Amino acid sequence: MKDYLYDGSGKFVPGKFNTAETGGLTKEEAVKLMNQNLPQIDDLQKKLYAEKKEGIIFLFQAMDAAGKDGTIQAVLSCLSPHGVKEYAFKAPNSTELAHDYLWRIHQCIPERGQIAIFNRSHYEDVIIGKVHKLYEYQTWANYIRKNEIIKNRYEDIRNFEKYLYNNSVRIVKIYLNVSKEEQAKRFLARLSDPKKYWKFSGADLKEREYWDQYQKAFTDAINKTATEYCPWYVVPADHKWYMRYVVSEIILNTLKDINPKFPKVSDSMKAHFDEAREVLEREMEK
Amino acid sequence: MKDYLYDGSGKFVPGKFNTAETGGLTKEEAVKLMNQNLPQIDDLQKKLYAEKKEGIIFLFQAMDAAGKDGTIQAVLSCLSPHGVKEYAFKAPNSTELAHDYLWRIHQCIPERGQIAIFNRSHYEDVIIGKVHKLYEYQTWANYIRKNEIIKNRYEDIRNFEKYLYNNSVRIVKIYLNVSKEEQAKRFLARLSDPKKYWKFSGADLKEREYWDQYQKAFTDAINKTATEYCPWYVVPADHKWYMRYVVSEIILNTLKDINPKFPKVSDSMKAHFDEAREVLEREMEK
Repeated sequence: MKDYLYDGSGKFVPGKFNTAETGGLTKEEAVKLMNQNLPQIDDLQKKLYAEKKEGIIFLFQAMDAAGKDGTIQAVLSCLSPHGVKEYAFKAPNSTELAHDYLWRIHQCIPERGQIAIFNRSHYEDVIIGKVHKLYEYQTWANYIRKNEIIKNRYEDIRNFEKYLYNNSVRIVKIYLNVSKEEQAKRFLARLSDPKKYWKFSGADLKEREYWDQYQKAFTDAINKTATEYCPWYVVPADHKWYMRYVVSEIILNTLKDINPKFPKVSDSMKAHFDEAREVLEREMEK
Repeated sequence: MKDYLYDGSGKFVPGKFNTAETGGLTKEEAVKLMNQNLPQIDDLQKKLYAEKKEGIIFLFQAMDAAGKDGTIQAVLSCLSPHGVKEYAFKAPNSTELAHDYLWRIHQCIPERGQIAIFNRSHYEDVIIGKVHKLYEYQTWANYIRKNEIIKNRYEDIRNFEKYLYNNSVRIVKIYLNVSKEEQAKRFLARLSDPKKYWKFSGADLKEREYWDQYQKAFTDAINKTATEYCPWYVVPADHKWYMRYVVSEIILNTLKDINPKFPKVSDSMKAHFDEAREVLEREMEK
């Protein structure tokens, strides 16, 4: 998945690759490969949980209807909720708005051994927050220069993610890159199926008018915050089956890179196991 | 209080000034001056709360028995708990230890308009955490170099505090600087008064053996994290009455610097007030 990796060594340029790309795979092949990945992800997550050395955040950002919810479900529902939590960051509530913008995010940073899935994240503050200048609706100290708020946020986020990495928590950031045409098709599907009505909001078409500003905001956010330790992946999202396979590869490769192992049992602990086994076996013989 | 201010422009050297200093004041004078400060602090806090532009953290660190609790009570109990919260950071519990060390701190960062009092803080992680290498008792990702943990924490803390300042929250850091002799006297007082027994811990004398290492850790922490926007104050602490007066000056001057004002009422709002007054007056005439 190196083609889709941005780790600060090269710039992400929108349109550089096709959002409809399928990596030369057919749908059948991609589904088969993804299904081979899922049990491996499950196995490694159990070791991560047992070892308790690292926390991981898989963070998803995308334009509306790019497929965040479906991808999270397809790839990550193979895992037990034990050790895996999803956090969906909606528009901040009044308590959250009264605080610094990373306040609500930091509360959801996982323990070592845990996986957190961020369905949206602090990146909203440099995406919708930038497009609509949402900071204009908040009060600020007199010394704040409003025209520097977004620039400062890129630095805040880089520092925050570096801090987390230095404290055994890594963030893997995934941007599901959908085309404007495909978004229109998916909105139409939502408008045509009563089971999908609830996913369509009156604001969706209004936001679609800001497509270019959003693309610019995503491009800036990715280029300003892609680092070796907390990289971005830009995943072609026009074909759901390919997007899901690629995400499963990213997650599996992250876990393989961490290479968690069940904690070693010491000889004295093994001797204790032998005793415990004997006690239990004697009890069962009675 | 400029003599006691460290904002990164000059180094703090322990022993540079006398912990028994009294600024040329008698006890009577200092108490009188402090009592003049308290109503002004109360007045400005109400405006800070109404304006909701800035949050403030007054953070206290010190050797044992230097007088954190007593100073907080003497200077800050003039304020209503409405808008002011104290957080005492004890040894981290198991949930906190499973997280990054700023996790529990960030939860206590105040809203804009609020004051938080940190009785100990994230600085414990570069003080007792450094003296006793407490990070050795935690699990870490394989990529972590343990000999860089403390160095990284200074950078983490600088970045965290800068981020908060950029988001309208300032931290004023106060180190109550007591002498080793005065600490002995105060421990003796605790050991001689049944009402103070509970303040003495069996570990206190053990920790006192590490006096020099603690002094070094405080000096490093102050010099590595004193900045213009989040400065340290090193307050002479051998005379409680002088320490308390100085702290009241620091708090008052911080609030004066912020200069909070009750929000302006617009003309249309004033017209609405006139209407509301009429409605209420008519009701009372009945």
